[in-house]
Order: sequence, then C-alpha cells, then structure tokens
Amino acid sequence: MKIAVLGTGTVGPTLAGALAGLGHDVVIGTRDPQATLARTEPGRMGAAPFAQWHAAHSQIGVAAFAEAAAGADIVVNATNGGGSLGALTAAGAANLAGKVVIDVANPLDFSHGMPPSLSPVNTDSLAEQIQRAFPEARVVKTLNTMTASVMVDPAAVAGGDHSVFVSGNDAEAKKTVAGLLKGFGHRDIIDLGDITTARGAEMIMPLWLRLWGALGTGQFNFKIVR
Amino acid sequence: MKIAVLGTGTVGPTLAGALAGLGHDVVIGTRDPQATLARTEPGRMGAAPFAQWHAAHSQIGVAAFAEAAAGADIVVNATNGGGSLGALTAAGAANLAGKVVIDVANPLDFSHGMPPSLSPVNTDSLAEQIQRAFPEARVVKTLNTMTASVMVDPAAVAGGDHSVFVSGNDAEAKKTVAGLLKGFGHRDIIDLGDITTARGAEMIMPLWLRLWGALGTGQFNFKIVR
Repeated sequence: MKIAVLGTGTVGPTLAGALAGLGHDVVIGTRDPQATLARTEPGRMGAAPFAQWHAAHSQIGVAAFAEAAAGADIVVNATNGGGSLGALTAAGAANLAGKVVIDVANPLDFSHGMPPSLSPVNTDSLAEQIQRAFPEARVVKTLNTMTASVMVDPAAVAGGDHSVFVSGNDAEAKKTVAGLLKGFGHRDIIDLGDITTARGAEMIMPLWLRLWGALGTGQFNFKIVR
Repeated sequence: MKIAVLGTGTVGPTLAGALAGLGHDVVIGTRDPQATLARTEPGRMGAAPFAQWHAAHSQIGVAAFAEAAAGADIVVNATNGGGSLGALTAAGAANLAGKVVIDVANPLDFSHGMPPSLSPVNTDSLAEQIQRAFPEARVVKTLNTMTASVMVDPAAVAGGDHSVFVSGNDAEAKKTVAGLLKGFGHRDIIDLGDITTARGAEMIMPLWLRLWGALGTGQFNFKIVR
C-alpha cells in the first residue's frame, strides 16, 4: 500500500522504516522537506539526525505534508500531538478524504511541567478532534500506548505477549489497521469501539510516563489479562 | 491489624470480607450505621442488600465513619470518589493522623453522561486531594485499577499473572500496603512513586471502562509486560 507517515521525530521514521521493510511504498511527510533534510542535530531522544536516518532508508521519499498525503492510500499521523491538527490541515482535507488516517500521537501538554499532562483530555481526545476536523477521513487511533520501537517490533518485549488498542468509527478502516498491526507482529488487537474510546487509550499515557520512570525503561507494554 | 473500611457499596464489603478472612480485625465505616443496616434494596451492581451481606459476616463491625476510623490502625477509603473527601472529613482528621490511609476510590464524574469521566483529572487526582486535606495521613493509592473481586482474589484472573500499582509519599506506608496486597495474592506490585503518580493510576479508569464494554466483563486486569 502507499502510505504517508507525517512526522519526523522518533515515531515517524520508526514507523516509516518498518512499513517500508514490509514492502509498502512509504513517503515521509514534513512541513519543509529541505529544512528536515538539512537538520544536523540529533532528535529529542538522542535519535540520529534525519538526514543520517534517511541515507540508510533512501527508498523512502520525503515530501511536504500535502504532497505526501495526496499520493497515499493511508496517512499516519506521527506528528507531536500539539502540532497534529496543524500538520493535518497542511496535508489538506481533500488529501485525507475517504482515506484511513492512523493517529498514533499523544496530546502531551508540557505547560504544567514534567511529566507532561494531556490536552485535550477526559471529555475529548486528539483522535476525536482530528475526526471532527476531517469528517471525511476514516480516523483510527492506535499504537499510542507504547514506545516507538515496540510499536513496530512487539516481539522485543516478552515475545509480543501484550495488547494494542484500536478506536474508530469505521469498521473497514479498523480492519485495514489491524492488518498492518499484524504485519508488525501484534497478536492481541483489542477493538475498544468508536472514536470516543480513544479517550481511554490516550489517558493511559500518564500511567505510561510514570511506569517509564519507575521501571527505568520504555521497553514495556500493557497486556490485558483475561 | 485493626482496619476500618469506609464505604458500603460493592468495594467496601468485598475488601472488608477479604481482610477479615485474612485474620484482620475489621470494622466497616458508614455515615449512618442504622440506615445502612436497614437497607433492603440491592446494590448498584446487583449486590445483596447490606444487612444480608452483614448477616454472613457478623464478625465485622459496622460503625459511623469517625468511630470506625478512631479504632483502626489502617483506614481504607472505599467510598465513591465524589463522596470521599466528605466521608474522610466525617471520619475526622485526628482519627486519620499518622495512619496509613489506603485510597482505592475513583473520582468518577457522571455529569457528562456515560461512561463517566474523571474529576479531578490530569493535573490533580483524588489521592492528592485526600493527602492535601489530611496532611498527617499517610495516603497510599492502590487497587483502583481493577474490579472489586479481582482486588481480593487476583488468582481468579489468569492465576494472578497481572499487576497492581501503589503511589504514595511514605515508603513505610507503601510497604505496609504491599504486605496486605501480597496477602490477597498480588505478586507484581509496582511502586509508581509519590502521591502525584496516582494521576496515572486514576487516569487508567477511562480505558478500564471501555475495556469493560469491549470485553463484556470486568474480570480482567492490566499486566505490565517487560
């Protein structure tokens, strides 16, 4: 499939690389491709500068948000949560209409100090904001409950014996997403329900952040034991 | 140990019965003991009326909040979240001072419809509100992330292969609570950190509620796989 991954932090390149490795035709979307490729500083979590990553993944295109989304069947929102609505607006409603939009972002709010809180939260979610802003997109929330490396390589934690959630209004879109998740090796895919259930998946992030602190690693995941 | 369990819904009697079964000296605290014992209607989740439960657990005393707390070494807040500060105020700051106060409540807010949202949330938590209101109490948040029956019988779900969290400012208090949790059969007890980490544990509740809907049962729990 032709997949646009919007976002050049840790999550976007991780997902793009893994999807390309599975044989998909992947383009990374960014606000300003020239600026992104010119970056020399490492990423927030110590990731390699984008150009260095891209040199090792030259089959993956780099394009402006709108161009990346226009050519794709599936669009992945891997931008930071605070910038997601802006990035998707730049991608263009017409370029998202009818497409599966996979939202993996967390609406982290750093204005109250560390660890970040969430905004929106509780009576709304980022996924719902995106669905409302782009009513013709088929938004599916998933993968936001784990660190990037576990998203694409679940087997790295306990052989993959843990859970991933999907939320969305469109059953076919969730089926498409489940197929991609299985491609990564996810086995326990729990359909929480419509897009409002993304509130639950997003609100697990504050616990994830405390567990990251308590365990001293992001290499963990939630398993729903039943 | 002498333990007061405040609250006569599903959680309070479940915890009280299990603690008594482990040999603790347990009293249930309620606003008006006569009114509680006179109830004939079943509980919210179809639980037996309190008097019927009490007839089968006559070794457990029933007392007003203050009397129950005054005689206890450990106080468990199992009241509903919206009423917890009022119940603990009725119990009396002097009767909580220096004691381990185990907060298992969730601050569910039904004012926005079903499923409930949370209040407080995100930049505060019920556990922190309680700790601020009763600074001499040694508040530990725990057990709020699972249904009552799993709290006291973790082995009923996958033989107990799942996790429970503790949050609190007092390391000794958390050690005491861990001992009680082990008494119930909990094996993976994760210390999230100080009382502010209760935000994480409380904010898992919206996901719990969606999972309850998606799975059609409350007989599940979170395991932190690492």
